[in-house]
Amino acid sequence: MNPASVGEATYHQAVVDVLGALAYAELSGSLRMSVDADRAPGLSERLTLARIAAHSWDNYTRLESRLTDLGESPEEVMSPFTVAVDGFHERTEPRDWLEGLVKAYVGDGIARDFYREVARRVDPQTRDLMDSVLADRGQEALLAEVIGDALERSPQEAGRLALWGRRLVGEAIAQTQRVAVERDALAALLVGAWDVPGAEGDLVELGRMLTRLTEAHTLRMRRIGLSA
Amino acid sequence: MNPASVGEATYHQAVVDVLGALAYAELSGSLRMSVDADRAPGLSERLTLARIAAHSWDNYTRLESRLTDLGESPEEVMSPFTVAVDGFHERTEPRDWLEGLVKAYVGDGIARDFYREVARRVDPQTRDLMDSVLADRGQEALLAEVIGDALERSPQEAGRLALWGRRLVGEAIAQTQRVAVERDALAALLVGAWDVPGAEGDLVELGRMLTRLTEAHTLRMRRIGLSA
Repeated sequence: MNPASVGEATYHQAVVDVLGALAYAELSGSLRMSVDADRAPGLSERLTLARIAAHSWDNYTRLESRLTDLGESPEEVMSPFTVAVDGFHERTEPRDWLEGLVKAYVGDGIARDFYREVARRVDPQTRDLMDSVLADRGQEALLAEVIGDALERSPQEAGRLALWGRRLVGEAIAQTQRVAVERDALAALLVGAWDVPGAEGDLVELGRMLTRLTEAHTLRMRRIGLSA
Repeated sequence: MNPASVGEATYHQAVVDVLGALAYAELSGSLRMSVDADRAPGLSERLTLARIAAHSWDNYTRLESRLTDLGESPEEVMSPFTVAVDGFHERTEPRDWLEGLVKAYVGDGIARDFYREVARRVDPQTRDLMDSVLADRGQEALLAEVIGDALERSPQEAGRLALWGRRLVGEAIAQTQRVAVERDALAALLVGAWDVPGAEGDLVELGRMLTRLTEAHTLRMRRIGLSA
């Protein structure tokens, strides 16, 4: 297969798409987390969430710098992904603080797993940046702790939150598929269209990826005491 | 006058109060600005506001470090100020994006002017940190530009926003007075209870300070084409 282009799509475009999608996800995640921090019931929870939000913003600025280095306008590159990401957020508007927390925990978890899978399909330099941005610096454990504490105080919320988690994962997968289908270069990358050194990816591998994402989600829900 | 204590209040406590109040104002301002960024109508405005929010968060972390260096728990030190600051935000909940912007512009402006006045009453080391945190890194001009653009598109909003600005300044002054009265050490600092080298402050000077804050507010409103 031609290593430089698949139809109209080029490998450069695929990498730019991946970085743009991830950058907008981090920007959007940072702002949503700040909204949750703003309505946190206490100062301690507020600080915990604000720190996670600041970390996502920091990730955003690193991706922004790379895009600029690649000669791209970060704003233009992110634009194609705002509809899907904003759409996900609009369709999963938390009704209260606890739903916001579970959304951050579940949504960030799935997104991080997904982009880690994507990172295996790109060149080493891009992969290093993505792996570093996607590294869990304790925020998942922190969120699990805050949610666990809240569920201990209000165990009657477990059923509602388990349902909420199922809705979140459904919407997240739907939006991810939508993005991948609409962006030729991204779809080509996912099915392994280019011979990128050390990269994996074909249709069979894509199926396995979805299985891995679902399994990781189930474990994540179990960790906070909820059924997936 | 005793340089170490005024009644039960000590100069150390006054400095800790000032830093704690400013830290919570920056934290809270950062989160509120992120909420505005989250509901911005376009990606470009979203990025502008997110950058201002990130800058406030950065200010917060610097104040937090200083408080920790002084042997204080940032969370405990900020706690006495959450009611007044949160109260201000609850009583001035913007009804839309434009009101949020004007609130950020007017509210941050008054707060910055007020803390700059306070900075003149503390020791040089504290003053340096405060001046650096309070330095305008272009965010005021940026906000004025975004608001100016919006008002150019919707000039019929000017009357409503001018009224909004008046309400904001009234609430801001009421909350500031409430904080100063409730915190003995802070009140003592404002009226110049301690002989801090290079510091200014007495009751006459306090009256002048209020005049300066009001004048600066009027100029700020005029800059975005609104009457104060």
